Amino acid sequence: MEAVLSAGAGESTRPSPSVPPFTDTVEDALREFFASRAGTVETVGGGYAEAVAALESFVLRGGKRVRPMFVWTGWLGAGGDATGPEAPAALRAASALELVQACALVHDDIIDASTTRRGFPTVHVEFADQHSAHHWSGGSAEFGRAVAILLGDLALAWADDMIREAGLSPDAQARISPVWSAMRTEVLGGQFLDISSEVRGDETVEAALRVDRYKTAAYTIERPLHLGAALAGADDALVAAYRTFGTDIGIAFQLRDDLLGVFGDPEITGKPSGDDLRAGKRTVLFAEALQRADASDPAAAALLRESIGTDLSDAQVATLRSVITDLGAVDDAERRISELTDSALSALDGSTATDEGKLRLREMAIAVTRRDA
Amino acid sequence: MEAVLSAGAGESTRPSPSVPPFTDTVEDALREFFASRAGTVETVGGGYAEAVAALESFVLRGGKRVRPMFVWTGWLGAGGDATGPEAPAALRAASALELVQACALVHDDIIDASTTRRGFPTVHVEFADQHSAHHWSGGSAEFGRAVAILLGDLALAWADDMIREAGLSPDAQARISPVWSAMRTEVLGGQFLDISSEVRGDETVEAALRVDRYKTAAYTIERPLHLGAALAGADDALVAAYRTFGTDIGIAFQLRDDLLGVFGDPEITGKPSGDDLRAGKRTVLFAEALQRADASDPAAAALLRESIGTDLSDAQVATLRSVITDLGAVDDAERRISELTDSALSALDGSTATDEGKLRLREMAIAVTRRDA
Repeated sequence: MEAVLSAGAGESTRPSPSVPPFTDTVEDALREFFASRAGTVETVGGGYAEAVAALESFVLRGGKRVRPMFVWTGWLGAGGDATGPEAPAALRAASALELVQACALVHDDIIDASTTRRGFPTVHVEFADQHSAHHWSGGSAEFGRAVAILLGDLALAWADDMIREAGLSPDAQARISPVWSAMRTEVLGGQFLDISSEVRGDETVEAALRVDRYKTAAYTIERPLHLGAALAGADDALVAAYRTFGTDIGIAFQLRDDLLGVFGDPEITGKPSGDDLRAGKRTVLFAEALQRADASDPAAAALLRESIGTDLSDAQVATLRSVITDLGAVDDAERRISELTDSALSALDGSTATDEGKLRLREMAIAVTRRDA
Repeated sequence: MEAVLSAGAGESTRPSPSVPPFTDTVEDALREFFASRAGTVETVGGGYAEAVAALESFVLRGGKRVRPMFVWTGWLGAGGDATGPEAPAALRAASALELVQACALVHDDIIDASTTRRGFPTVHVEFADQHSAHHWSGGSAEFGRAVAILLGDLALAWADDMIREAGLSPDAQARISPVWSAMRTEVLGGQFLDISSEVRGDETVEAALRVDRYKTAAYTIERPLHLGAALAGADDALVAAYRTFGTDIGIAFQLRDDLLGVFGDPEITGKPSGDDLRAGKRTVLFAEALQRADASDPAAAALLRESIGTDLSDAQVATLRSVITDLGAVDDAERRISELTDSALSALDGSTATDEGKLRLREMAIAVTRRDA
C-alpha cells in the first residue's frame, strides 16, 4: 500500500518529479500546526514544551497517512482542484485526521500495554523510562501512563483545533461537521466494542465484523472519503457511493489483514508468523473457522479454543493454519474480500466521481485488498 | 459557592421564582446533546449505548457547573441578553465546558487512582466492578481503565461537537475558536505540570502557583469568562479586564482551597481534617511554609518534609497546622488572597462590564474566596 499512498499530493495520473510525496505534504501541515501551538505551550512552561515535543515526534515519525490520503482523494474525486485556492485548506483538514489517529494510537497502546510502536518505545513507555532514568518519586509506569493519557487528550483536542483553523469556508465547515462528529464517535465505539467483545468472549462472526466496521472501515476509509466529499460539496449520491465503497473496502482491507496475520510471510510482513493467533485476536477469520468447527468438527473447535492467545510454537501455528484452511475459513475470507471489492468497485464505477478519482480509488482499493504485507 | 452558582440562568438581580436554576438549564442542554448522539451510538451497537449511558449519568450527576456559569456571566456582563435570540446558543456553548470537565475528571481519576467521585464509584472503578461481577476474562482493573480512557476521549470529542453545533454564528465561532483552543491546551498543561512537579519533588512556590494558574485559574474562571466575552463580541479592554479578574480570582480560589484542605472544618467541608497533608498535595500553602522553614527553622522543615503524604493521626495534623501557622504561611496565604481579590475587583470595577455583570461577578468572587466549604 505504501507505493499508492506516497503518491504526490497534487499529481495527476502522470506523476511529476517536482511534486513532493503526499506524506511529506501532510507532515509539513502537521509541523506547521505544532509550531502554531508553541506560544501557548511555552507560556505554560514547566516542561510542557518537552512533553509536547515528544508528541510531535510521535506524530511525525511515520505512518502511511492513509486517512488524510482518503480525504484528499475523496475531495479530488468530488471535483476538488489540487492546484486551486481551496486545496491548502482541504489538505490541512485532511492532515488533522493524523492527530485523531495519534490519540487513538497513544491511548490504544496504554490499553493494550504495548511497549513498541513504529520501532520506538510507545509514549507511555517513553515517559516511564524517563521517570526511571531520573529516579523521580512514585511509580514509573503510573507516571508514563498519566503523561500518555494527557498527550493523547491533547492530540484529540488539537485535531479539532486543526480542522477549525484549516481555513475552510463556514459552508465547508458546516458540511463536514456531522461527518467529523460521526467519525470520532464511531471509532471510539469500535475501540470499545473491540475490548468489550474480547473480555466477554464473544466468538461470533457478527461481533468481529462489527469491530471491523467501526474500528477500521468507518474510521479509515468510509468517513475520510465522506469528509473529502463533504469538503468539496458533493451531492448525496456521490456521498452514498463513497460510503459504500469505503465501508466495503475497509472491511475487505481488515479481512486481508486477518489473513496476513495468520498466513503472512514473516519476511514480507515483518511480523512473526501466526502473530494474530498468539495475540489472541478475535478476527472474522478466526470466528468463521470456529463457527464452522462447532458445526462439523468438535475436535477442531476444541483445538482452536485452547490454542488462541497462547504462546504457540511454529509447529502449532502450522497445524492451526491447516485446521483453519481445511474448515474452509480461508476460502470464505477470500470470497468475502472478493465480493466486497466487487461491490465497492461497482459503487465507485456507477458514481459521479471524476475519472481521475475513480482511477485512484480503484488503485487504492486493489492495493489494500490484494497486498501481501 | 453553591448558592451563587445556582442563581437563575435568566434572572436579573431580583430573582424570579419562575426561572429554573442555572444548573438545571445546563443539565437540560447536556441531556439534549446526549439525545442527539443516540442515533450514531445505537448504530454502533454492541453495548456502546450502555457505556455512553454511564458517561451521561456521570455528566448529569451534579457538580456546580462553575465553568458554564462563568461563561454565561461573562457573556451577560459583556452585553449578552439572557432573553434575546442569541441566548440559547450561548447557553449551549457554555454547557459544553462540562464535557471537557467530564474528560478531565474521568481521566484524572485514572491518573490519581481515585475510587470515588461525587459519592459514586469513579468511571474506571464502575467498569472494573462490572467486569468482576460478570466474571469476564482478563483483568478487571485493566478493563475499567480502558473503558474510562475511551469514555473520557468521547467526552472531549463531544465537547467540540457541542460547541460546533451550539447554533453560534460563524462570526461568534471564529471569535471563540482561539479561546477554546487555549483553554484546552492550558488545562492539559496544568494537569501535566501537576503530576510532573509532584514526581520531580519540585517544592517551590513558583511551581505550585504555575499549577494553580493553568490547572485551576485559566480553566475555571479566566478562559470561561473570556469565552463569554468572545461570544458577545466584547472589545479587547473588557477581555483584558475579565482575564485579570479571572486569573486573580482563580488563584485566590485555589489558595482558599489550600487553606480549607488543611484547616477546614470537616463538618462543613465534608472531608477529613488535614486531608491535603495526608494526600501529599504540593500546594502554595505548603510550599510557602517549607520555604520559610528552610530559611529560619530547619527542624520545622524536616518535620514538614517527613510528614507530607503520610498517614497522619489527628494529633499530627494538629501539630502540622501549628507549625504552618507559626511559620506565617497562613497569614501569607490570606495576604495573597486579599491582594488577588483586590486586584481582581479593581480590574472588574474599571471595566466596561454591565452593572449587572459587575454585581454578579463581584458576588461570585467573594463567594469563592471567602467560603468555608
